[in-house]
This record gives sequence, C-alpha cells and structure tokens, in this order.
Amino acid sequence: MKTRAAVALEAGKPLEVMEVNLDGPKTGEVLVEIKATGICHTDEFTRSGADPEGLFPAILGHEGAGVVVEIGEGVTTLKPGDHVIPLYTPECRECASCLSGKTNLCTKIRATQGQGKMPDGTTRFSMLDGTPIHHYMGCSTFANHTVLPEIALAKVREDAPFDKICYIGCGVTTGIGAVINTAKVEIGSTAAVFGLGGIGLNVIQGLRLAGADKIIGVDINNEKKAMAEHFGMTHFVNPKEISGSVVEEIVNLTKTDFDQIGGVDYSFDATGNVQVMRDALECTHRGWGQSIIIGVAPAGAEISTRPFQLVTGRVWKGTAFGGAKGRTDVPKIVDWYMDGKIEIDPMITHVLTLDQINEGFDLMHAGKSIRAVVQF
Amino acid sequence: MKTRAAVALEAGKPLEVMEVNLDGPKTGEVLVEIKATGICHTDEFTRSGADPEGLFPAILGHEGAGVVVEIGEGVTTLKPGDHVIPLYTPECRECASCLSGKTNLCTKIRATQGQGKMPDGTTRFSMLDGTPIHHYMGCSTFANHTVLPEIALAKVREDAPFDKICYIGCGVTTGIGAVINTAKVEIGSTAAVFGLGGIGLNVIQGLRLAGADKIIGVDINNEKKAMAEHFGMTHFVNPKEISGSVVEEIVNLTKTDFDQIGGVDYSFDATGNVQVMRDALECTHRGWGQSIIIGVAPAGAEISTRPFQLVTGRVWKGTAFGGAKGRTDVPKIVDWYMDGKIEIDPMITHVLTLDQINEGFDLMHAGKSIRAVVQF
Ligand SMILES: [Zn+2]
Ligand SMILES: [Zn+2]
Ligand SMILES: [Zn+2]
Ligand SMILES: [Zn+2]
Repeated sequence: MKTRAAVALEAGKPLEVMEVNLDGPKTGEVLVEIKATGICHTDEFTRSGADPEGLFPAILGHEGAGVVVEIGEGVTTLKPGDHVIPLYTPECRECASCLSGKTNLCTKIRATQGQGKMPDGTTRFSMLDGTPIHHYMGCSTFANHTVLPEIALAKVREDAPFDKICYIGCGVTTGIGAVINTAKVEIGSTAAVFGLGGIGLNVIQGLRLAGADKIIGVDINNEKKAMAEHFGMTHFVNPKEISGSVVEEIVNLTKTDFDQIGGVDYSFDATGNVQVMRDALECTHRGWGQSIIIGVAPAGAEISTRPFQLVTGRVWKGTAFGGAKGRTDVPKIVDWYMDGKIEIDPMITHVLTLDQINEGFDLMHAGKSIRAVVQF
Repeated sequence: MKTRAAVALEAGKPLEVMEVNLDGPKTGEVLVEIKATGICHTDEFTRSGADPEGLFPAILGHEGAGVVVEIGEGVTTLKPGDHVIPLYTPECRECASCLSGKTNLCTKIRATQGQGKMPDGTTRFSMLDGTPIHHYMGCSTFANHTVLPEIALAKVREDAPFDKICYIGCGVTTGIGAVINTAKVEIGSTAAVFGLGGIGLNVIQGLRLAGADKIIGVDINNEKKAMAEHFGMTHFVNPKEISGSVVEEIVNLTKTDFDQIGGVDYSFDATGNVQVMRDALECTHRGWGQSIIIGVAPAGAEISTRPFQLVTGRVWKGTAFGGAKGRTDVPKIVDWYMDGKIEIDPMITHVLTLDQINEGFDLMHAGKSIRAVVQF
C-alpha cells in the first residue's frame, strides 16, 4: 500500500512530507493507522544530526496513537479495530530482561530496532523509487500508517482521545514512571525537579499522584512557573535569581527543626545537562537521597561527582520510558487520564496537520510549545 | 589517669608510643580499656597526611575491642565489665537520620567528631605537658584506654576474643554490610568484587553468606587468589592477564544461554581507585545492575561515566561502615563469627604489641598483612 509520511531524508534538513510505499505486516507484525503523534525532543535529536546513531532516510516519530488495520500471521493479542499506542520499549514477556521482573528494558528486538529495521532485518517502508526507508525507535509514527511488532503495541480503551493519549507513548509515561516505577516515591517525600518542560511537568504530576509533600521545581525560565504550579509544584527555584548555589538553596528549603541536614529525598533531571545532573544528585539528602536521570545528554557527555557523595548514602539512577512495561502499564496510565487522576490536556499546546510538522519543530525550538501534536 | 598510646604527632611521621593524660568520662561518656585494635588503611590515610581533614597531634585507631572501666553520668546502657566495640559511626537512635530507618549515618555527634573532639567540644587526651591530643573518628583505639560517647559503643558477648572481633569494628562490618545492608544481595545473584584486600575478602564472605552463585574477584595480584577462594570467590580475573577489558571479561563470564546480555547483578569497589569504580559500574547488568563504592578515593578524585549507563538501568551507590547500625548490627556480627557463619581468623595475619605498631603500617604498605592487630 501507499501512505503519507514525513520523511527525514538527511540529517539537519526539514522533514519532507511525501507518499511512501508500506508493505503489509509480516509474521508477528501489525499494521496501524496512526491517528495522532507528538513531536518529541528525541525526534529532534535525531533529525538534527546530533544523534551519532541516527540513520537516514528515516520516518521519525515515536509518540503515537492509532487503530489496528491488519494483523500478520501469529498475532494473537490484537485484532483490527483495536486502539493502540506504539511502544519504543517493547514488552515481549519472554526475554531474560522481561522475565527478570527487575527492568522494563526488553531486549527481544533491540538489535534490529537499533538498525532501523523490523525484527526480520528488513524495512516495511520504501521511497516510491524503491529505496528502503529506516524505521525509527521501532515506531515511525510520523506516517499515516506504520507497521510494528505485536510486542511493541499497548492495547488501550477505545473512548480515549488519540490527540491526548499519544503523549502517553513517551513524555507522560517517562515523567510519571520515573516517579512511581524508578524512584518509587513514598507519600510525604520531598523532591526536586530540574527542568520544567514537558517531562518535568509530568514528573511533577507524578509526584503529586505519589503524595509528595514538597515539590521543588528548578528552571532558569520564570515563565515555566505557572504551569508547573498547576501540575503540583510547591516551590520554585530559578538558579539565575539566587545568591548561592542551587544545591544550597534546595538543602535550605528542606531543612526542618528536626532535620538540620536538609536535602530532598528524590531529585529528577529532565534537562539532559550533565552539570545539572550533578547538582540534582548533590541536593539530595545525605544517607538516603536518590537522584534519577531522565534527560538525554549530548553524545559523549559524562556525569561526574566525588565518590563521597555516594559513600554518604546518595543513590544515582536513571530511567528509560519511566521504567514502564509498555503493554502492562500504558493502558493503566490511559485509564488514569480518563479517570482524571492525571492531566494531559493543558500540555498539548498545539495541534497541527502532517503538512505543518516542521512548524512543530520550530515551536519546540522557540520554547513556545509544551507538546505539539500532529493529527491525521 | 595516665595511659599508653601511639600518638601521631605530625603528618607523615611514624607514630610515637608514649604515656599520655586521659581525663575520666564526662556525662554520657564511657572509659574503655582497649584490649586489641586493628590497623586500617584509613588510619594510614590520615597518618600519611593524605587526608585533607587530618588533625594533629592525634591518637589514631578506630577498629578496636575492649572492656568498660567506668561510666560517666547518665550512661544507662553500659556498666563496668561490659565488652564493647567502639563505633566510628555511632547510633544515637534519636536523630533525624537514625529515626529515618533509611540510613546508618547518625548525625548526633558528627560535627565534634570531625573536629577530633568529644561531644562537649573538648578532648580527654593530652600530652604530659598539657597539650590537647585530638580524638580520631571518635574512637582513638591506638591507646590502652580511651573515652567514647555511650552511643558510639556496641555491647558484645563476653566469650568473643578481642584480637579477632576488633576487626568487626571496621573491615568485617564494612565488607559484609555492603552486601547485606547496602546492596541487599539475593540468593542466586552474580557479583564482582574489585580489590581482594581485607575489605574485598569480607565482601566475598558476605556474598557467600547471602547465597550468591557467581562471585568474581578482580585483582592485579595473583597471590590474592587462594585466600579469596577460601572465602568464597568462584572466578578470578587479573586485568593484567586478559586480552580485552575487565568489563568485557566480566560480561562474558556472566552470559548464559538464556541471557546473552551479561553483566553482574552486583559489583563492589574495594580499591578506592576512581577508574576501577567506573569499571565496577559498567560491568553490571543492563536493566538492574547495582554497583557499590566502598573504597575511599584520594582527595579531590571524581568518578564519572556516561549517563547512558544509568539510564539503561544501572544503579550507583556507596556504603559507609557497610550500612550497619553499630549498636544494633555489630553484636549480631560477633554472634555470626562465634557461630562460624563468618570467618575472621585467617585474615588476622599479624599480632603485634603497641610498641611494634609502626611495623603494622610497614606490613600494610608491603602488602604482607591482610590485617595486623595490636594486642595490649
Ligand atoms: Zn520521546
Ligand atoms: Zn522482552
Ligand atoms: Zn577502617
Ligand atoms: Zn543518630
């Protein structure tokens, strides 16, 4: 069949919307009609050429929602008409990682996914002249139709709006999951969130959901304050507007009469800046503070600290897709949205057509959008 | 009263054994006759002048065992004749840290301890000319008698030999505790231990106690192999004798037919070398590997890695005194020794008199001792 897609032909160039060939689903695969897709910083990381593992030409996009059109041989858990969210972290439920019960990082199709291929080592997309087009993060949601492995699709309820729940395919789950799956924040905790973009806002609403007491947001842009407060931030720190260091500021904000040491129980980096990651670690409480890295750092960048920070009880962790097991957890998060336990609507600041997709990248660069969504 | 002690008069100089003045215990303090004390790398770190926070003159030593001679006002949990192990990490059971239930790093007397003082801000030791002598880590076990706060003494059974259980005051508890309190290793786990000195051996026997399956020891000295095997090491890696990197070697050693990713579930650095700390992190399993820093790094040294290592599920931690709550856990470890659950005797390679204490430091430098103990 043919479908319309925004194709990244070369690193650093705008996407080109065009008609492409799409082969039907092979064994274990599913053809999905994408109804909506978010535009994420990770897409831009690859589009821009900053990603050293980026492949071109490719159909980017990994934050979508849609409807099953056709299933390949052997597919048993999905049928045409099912509503689905693509998963860049699949959940096969049979590899050593899935069965460990200790991680969401399924490895079943990791090698081929990293090569921009389906599990059989080929692509379903091609240019009209026959040139293969790489898949992206196993999803390629910047296309009206795409093919994914069955294990990379979460089945979700049918009354949920595509243009909102597509965001659960990446940012929402990453932020909320970092709190509840990776940090396992307890009621009454204190926390600091570095970077109040889309991920940071979702960390904040995750902290509210988890019952945190103090939720300290850190951003160098005062304009982020109001929205962060809407999602549950209780204290705001602008590192450019304080006299001391941000670490001292957060330590002081968390001292009490009983506890004169100070420091947050949990911190989250949603900036991708390795110096900020260090501050995030060092502002946590001596003895038990945990810092979770969410942001993606530039290629080659390294984090560092004195080992004394860890020897005195701090824990340094990271999270990918919020530690969520996609097929298991994503449908629950859709329920939470539909039940009003979490909010997504105020974060979807722009809705575009596929033809306008490059404007979505412009809005992201200009800091004008929290999330721009393409609706098909 | 007067007592005999080995005094560190100046950084970098041998200790001098001499008679010193010792004031009796003040409120909340206890006078202890030290019966035996180990000589630890931390003592050498300070004696040598490498410790930027080292104070002189001081009576070093923090790994002792002895008998209560006299109690100060208000002391309720100890009486003359009780056998005790001094605790450089006290356990007050009333500060925010103790009551958190999440850390052993009691902060009740941290400030004065760091200044080489008792909690009232003064020292009990002085030279015969009246010059105050600093306490060290709140213990100063290189003296025949010493004064400690009640909260810095673990009461232990009276049938345990002082010249063995003194080692529980530091190395034994640090190594075993890193496994059971900090890492919380489960039965069937795989683990790597970097550095097969005294701490490394105790990590290894902690892993055996915890039921680990594969216990991989790493050291550049082949002579460490036999003793490590005695304590439970199952595989030995000498980084100088392999073709690839130590990380690759350990990953390959832990691959199975089912799990082709490889990497240990837990790793422990007992070297204090920050590059080794990085290897220890990076040889752990993607998705859930935890690496525990035990070794003390040189002043100013920093650990670093790519954040990707953490984002893909590895956890970086540290431990101080093995995460043990001294008054609660140390008596149990003494029981384990007396019950034969752990071994100490083969690690006490040399027993010296106080007058021979500088020979103990020489043995440590020459790598000839695992632990040299001074017996009074
Ligand atoms: Zn994303
Ligand atoms: Zn899997
Ligand atoms: Zn020690
Ligand atoms: Zn305490």
